[in-house]
Amino acid sequence: MIYFDSAATSWPKPIEVWKAMEHCIRFVGANPGRSGHSMALEAGRLVDETRELLASLFNIRNPDQIVFTLNATEALNLAIKGLLKEGDHVVTSSMEHNSVTRPLQVMKGRGVEVTKVPCAADGSIKVKDLEAALKPNTAAVVITHASNVTGTLMPIGEIGQLTKKKGLRLIVDAAQTAGVFDLDVSFMGIHLLAFPGHKGLYGPTGTGGLYIAEGLELTPLKEGGTGSKSEIPDQPDLMPERYESGTLNSVGIAGLAAGLKFIRREGMERIRKHEMNLTHRFLEGVKEIQGLTVYGPKDLYSRTPVVSFSLKGKPAGAVGTILDQQYKIACRAGLHCAPDAHRTLGTFEQKLVRFSFSYFNNEREIDQAILSLKKIAAIPTEEFNKKEDKSCGC
Amino acid sequence: MIYFDSAATSWPKPIEVWKAMEHCIRFVGANPGRSGHSMALEAGRLVDETRELLASLFNIRNPDQIVFTLNATEALNLAIKGLLKEGDHVVTSSMEHNSVTRPLQVMKGRGVEVTKVPCAADGSIKVKDLEAALKPNTAAVVITHASNVTGTLMPIGEIGQLTKKKGLRLIVDAAQTAGVFDLDVSFMGIHLLAFPGHKGLYGPTGTGGLYIAEGLELTPLKEGGTGSKSEIPDQPDLMPERYESGTLNSVGIAGLAAGLKFIRREGMERIRKHEMNLTHRFLEGVKEIQGLTVYGPKDLYSRTPVVSFSLKGKPAGAVGTILDQQYKIACRAGLHCAPDAHRTLGTFEQKLVRFSFSYFNNEREIDQAILSLKKIAAIPTEEFNKKEDKSCGC
Repeated sequence: MIYFDSAATSWPKPIEVWKAMEHCIRFVGANPGRSGHSMALEAGRLVDETRELLASLFNIRNPDQIVFTLNATEALNLAIKGLLKEGDHVVTSSMEHNSVTRPLQVMKGRGVEVTKVPCAADGSIKVKDLEAALKPNTAAVVITHASNVTGTLMPIGEIGQLTKKKGLRLIVDAAQTAGVFDLDVSFMGIHLLAFPGHKGLYGPTGTGGLYIAEGLELTPLKEGGTGSKSEIPDQPDLMPERYESGTLNSVGIAGLAAGLKFIRREGMERIRKHEMNLTHRFLEGVKEIQGLTVYGPKDLYSRTPVVSFSLKGKPAGAVGTILDQQYKIACRAGLHCAPDAHRTLGTFEQKLVRFSFSYFNNEREIDQAILSLKKIAAIPTEEFNKKEDKSCGC
Repeated sequence: MIYFDSAATSWPKPIEVWKAMEHCIRFVGANPGRSGHSMALEAGRLVDETRELLASLFNIRNPDQIVFTLNATEALNLAIKGLLKEGDHVVTSSMEHNSVTRPLQVMKGRGVEVTKVPCAADGSIKVKDLEAALKPNTAAVVITHASNVTGTLMPIGEIGQLTKKKGLRLIVDAAQTAGVFDLDVSFMGIHLLAFPGHKGLYGPTGTGGLYIAEGLELTPLKEGGTGSKSEIPDQPDLMPERYESGTLNSVGIAGLAAGLKFIRREGMERIRKHEMNLTHRFLEGVKEIQGLTVYGPKDLYSRTPVVSFSLKGKPAGAVGTILDQQYKIACRAGLHCAPDAHRTLGTFEQKLVRFSFSYFNNEREIDQAILSLKKIAAIPTEEFNKKEDKSCGC
């Protein structure tokens, strides 16, 4: 099978990821931070080590400012709901994933004003449009680092300069970039960075996290046992426990550490270069396919290795099904949990097919996919309409 | 090492648990419920199968009423914060874990009235005391199935009859009982059942869930991508997606399925019998140790295999450290994230040492522990005070 769905979750994972998980569950199986015995302390050290690896990757001074969550969505919920207060105004883009738009929608009901800055047809945003949307009561800018539909990279560095100048908080959704593209919270002026553990960081599902800038006080999403200050009735204000109630996914976090070490060993630049070379090869290869339209930036420097496209007259879901069943290519067709992005592109009705490439893909797979798309493009439209549409509609 | 800390997380896990996780991460590594391709559908089936196994265990008619969470704490937060509204009154016990008391503390700040019904010195509660605490605005009873400190079993069946008669909601924290003691949501009249995956169910850390009775509408804790109804701005009302935003811990959930199959194969009654036999042996064995006081019910039918005790004149933390370092016995000393329970027992200041037994413990380990405790009890108090207290204070 050819796996082109790494924007949903990366696969395969480096061998050492599940080896680390097996080691953790077999030999360090205790509850980290709960008991004082040797195995619990060892589990705690494993978790701490992962925090340190993440801190080093994102240039975070104090690893304890990183909080582990179930996934990036939980991290974004904590950031958005934890930070914003009634009467606040928040600026976001028209390219966001539902993990940003839906918590913002809830906050609207709690008296938060939301402005969605329209992006261009390639998904890009103009910083001056963001600036023009600011109001006296603007508290924060919430934006993705890169679209999960078009791969469009947002100018986080420039936006960080703007938010710094205006004294605003910057919340960044790094779901599509963490582990592949440079993220420096200090340099970029990021106050809250949400990231998944199971995409570009090569950890297992069940891992993710939020960096919270020092001095920033959020309302926790959950309260409970933290293994510290158990005697007080309120959630303790210690970091990272304040936002980490209940047993952590220590086994998954051990796998995430292995993923982070893999990135360190291979080199993020090398990983990115490989993925972008594949993207280039694909973009060049599909140019000659009639009726195939690629959405998003044309130049490689403005995008990630996520490519969405349509085939004229052929529903995205049906194309996805043929790719899966006939050509054994796993991709994602539909709205990609980002209806706003599809509205921006003008593809809300027709939907798109998305290919997302990882370090484990190769040129042969790209060539095979291009060939498959050529064949699908050649199927007469009337015949096509008989095909079953197995798109999940998302 | 002798592992007596299964009330924090069970260890070891059955071999098939990590084998199932390895299989999932290597061969079914896609994102469940996100894309339409074969591997994503297979990942979805794995998650569905786990829901069905849980439904069968707890006698839940519709598996889709089970929502996966990071841990039982998240499930309790969703239940408590999702259900209670300003002006509601809620009744709970004085033996609860911080995963119940802290979310309730937050709800106090949001206009919810909380009554903690005092329990007896052995941790037991009288249903008539619970009934006496009810008010016209009482909306729910929130109670643990068994104390994580004393192992005291609460009369959930009787409480369920009361809440049914009074038209109240019943929220049960099954952190210490799921997988070992009978839980039948229909028969017991439970509306919201929170459970961890990584304790008695033998799954890995990073798993847990909440059963939500049909027709019950909770405010979600998190919103985001659900892989369904992506086009609508609000969180969809489909079950279970309404409460499952973002990528699920599919790898952990695959391990949980293996744990549930292990329980089914071995038989819950056999597991419980083995654990209670060990508890009996331990309780009998420590009777002759001078200065050792066991807290909680004396009879086996009123308790779980969790035993907390003190050694006169010897701080719990220091006893825990000696057990770990000198006798290689892993246990948990401190407040066990349940300060209310320790206040009830009168052990808030002195704290306790907790042993919790699992199916993988044996009589030889129990005997060795009794012998070790005898030796520790014989250490002169003055010498004891020099020992380092490595208790985590929780």
